[in-house]
Amino acid sequence: MKLTLVGSIAYDSVKTPYGEVEQALGGSSFFASVAASYFCKPCVVGVVGEDYDKKNLELLNGMGIDTSGVDVLPGKTFHWKGVYNDLNRAETLDTQLNVFADFNPIVSKEFASNDYLFLGNIHPALQLNVLNQLEGCKITAMDTMNYWISSAKDELLEVIKNIDIVFINEDEAKMLTERNNVYDASEDILAMGPKLVLLKRGEYGAMAIMKDMLFFSPVYPVKKVIDPTGAGDSFAGGFMGYLAGAGEFTPKRIKEAVIYGTVMASLDVQSFSADGMMNLTKEVIEERRKKVIDIISF
Amino acid sequence: MKLTLVGSIAYDSVKTPYGEVEQALGGSSFFASVAASYFCKPCVVGVVGEDYDKKNLELLNGMGIDTSGVDVLPGKTFHWKGVYNDLNRAETLDTQLNVFADFNPIVSKEFASNDYLFLGNIHPALQLNVLNQLEGCKITAMDTMNYWISSAKDELLEVIKNIDIVFINEDEAKMLTERNNVYDASEDILAMGPKLVLLKRGEYGAMAIMKDMLFFSPVYPVKKVIDPTGAGDSFAGGFMGYLAGAGEFTPKRIKEAVIYGTVMASLDVQSFSADGMMNLTKEVIEERRKKVIDIISF
Repeated sequence: MKLTLVGSIAYDSVKTPYGEVEQALGGSSFFASVAASYFCKPCVVGVVGEDYDKKNLELLNGMGIDTSGVDVLPGKTFHWKGVYNDLNRAETLDTQLNVFADFNPIVSKEFASNDYLFLGNIHPALQLNVLNQLEGCKITAMDTMNYWISSAKDELLEVIKNIDIVFINEDEAKMLTERNNVYDASEDILAMGPKLVLLKRGEYGAMAIMKDMLFFSPVYPVKKVIDPTGAGDSFAGGFMGYLAGAGEFTPKRIKEAVIYGTVMASLDVQSFSADGMMNLTKEVIEERRKKVIDIISF
Repeated sequence: MKLTLVGSIAYDSVKTPYGEVEQALGGSSFFASVAASYFCKPCVVGVVGEDYDKKNLELLNGMGIDTSGVDVLPGKTFHWKGVYNDLNRAETLDTQLNVFADFNPIVSKEFASNDYLFLGNIHPALQLNVLNQLEGCKITAMDTMNYWISSAKDELLEVIKNIDIVFINEDEAKMLTERNNVYDASEDILAMGPKLVLLKRGEYGAMAIMKDMLFFSPVYPVKKVIDPTGAGDSFAGGFMGYLAGAGEFTPKRIKEAVIYGTVMASLDVQSFSADGMMNLTKEVIEERRKKVIDIISF
């Protein structure tokens, strides 16, 4: 089945203890669609500037990603510049929204009827706008960040009320619910409407929480994290991609999806940009899947 | 089988966001032996002062714990006073070693021939001293802390070289090995001699690492942590107690032991002192064991 992804497409300039890149491919929809491409047909809605190399979209097309929903507008592409002195936390040095400042996602009739949707971390008002355009989408998911929790909480709560799956990291979950315990926080979020919370805990793994299910996945043991940028989006992309490919929203599939999301995030962080997720064989993915399952096999 | 435990027996005065206690029962051997008592026969080597209420030792005896190795010396019992403003980190307000300052563990012939040994967090020189007294002990384990890593590293390395199991938290593991990755750190520790590293990660669970095994256990989901004091010792006690009770040092038993350690730690933190581990039925323990396994069941 097909997965519609709405979010940012960016150029990233990133410095980590292991090196740096300038104008590397980035953005939530970029990472998520690349990760998802191994499991389903991703359909990207986004915007880039005239400076965005056509070859980048062709690269995505070559991976089976439909970029017909990506508008090319006059001006420059969204640019994020950041540094990781500590690999657990990015420090933003510069954000130039450029054409992304006026991003107003229009979802084509075709994309609006895809069965699965992933809303990357964009303004909740835009997320709501997308939800209102959907026609027959079965499972909707969203990501968010601390900035929206403090600056657009009402709109964010409205999105959460109308979504099936919330991707959120543990600090944000606590901030959103004003709880200091992740289990309370997750229950509070479920009570707001969603069926499933995916709690991201960085190097400690992820938890999938439903009313009657709690599933934990550790990370794939990566010895050398080169660049954490996009890890959360790759996790979400792998998760949603697998779910869309499977076409079933069941506990069993959800657990599998958590593992695949974990695998894609581990591949992402081992290189700059999404280089670690390019040209993967099925064997590489399955080997990591097996390893993660092995770590929790009793 | 029997488990010999060598470590501190203390009075703790603890303040947490949920209340405070004065002169509560504490110390590494106290927590560990209580946790272990549900799985094997714990034999405690330690020292208390004349102020230590006889009833406390009788309480332990009533749980099947052999306290014949606990000396009562002139003076006062070791006293620790601490506060948890953040439940993840204790701040020590006062440490009065008292009789514990001259603790020089003498292990009786009987205890020295027990099959399993747990060395609580005491000076590495004392840990070495105990190891040298053993007669036919099969599996030895130790805990340590950052203080010994910086102040007695050579002696600590000598203990690690001669031990089977190392309990250590992730920050200490990184500090000890000067690595910034837990997997590298754990491999380095294994290379020093031990067969197994138990990496403690607080609310994120624990990892058991052997040359050919990596096993992860999340914590039991505790919504209200009342007092974290003794969590690590309860984990180690539950782990070692189960292993001693089973009498087998195999991957399967080690994984079970991690789960039981996790269960005992979860019971410990839900009350002050070791109150949460007192008078437990087998059902309570098994129910939590089942829940933890359920969280990682694929």
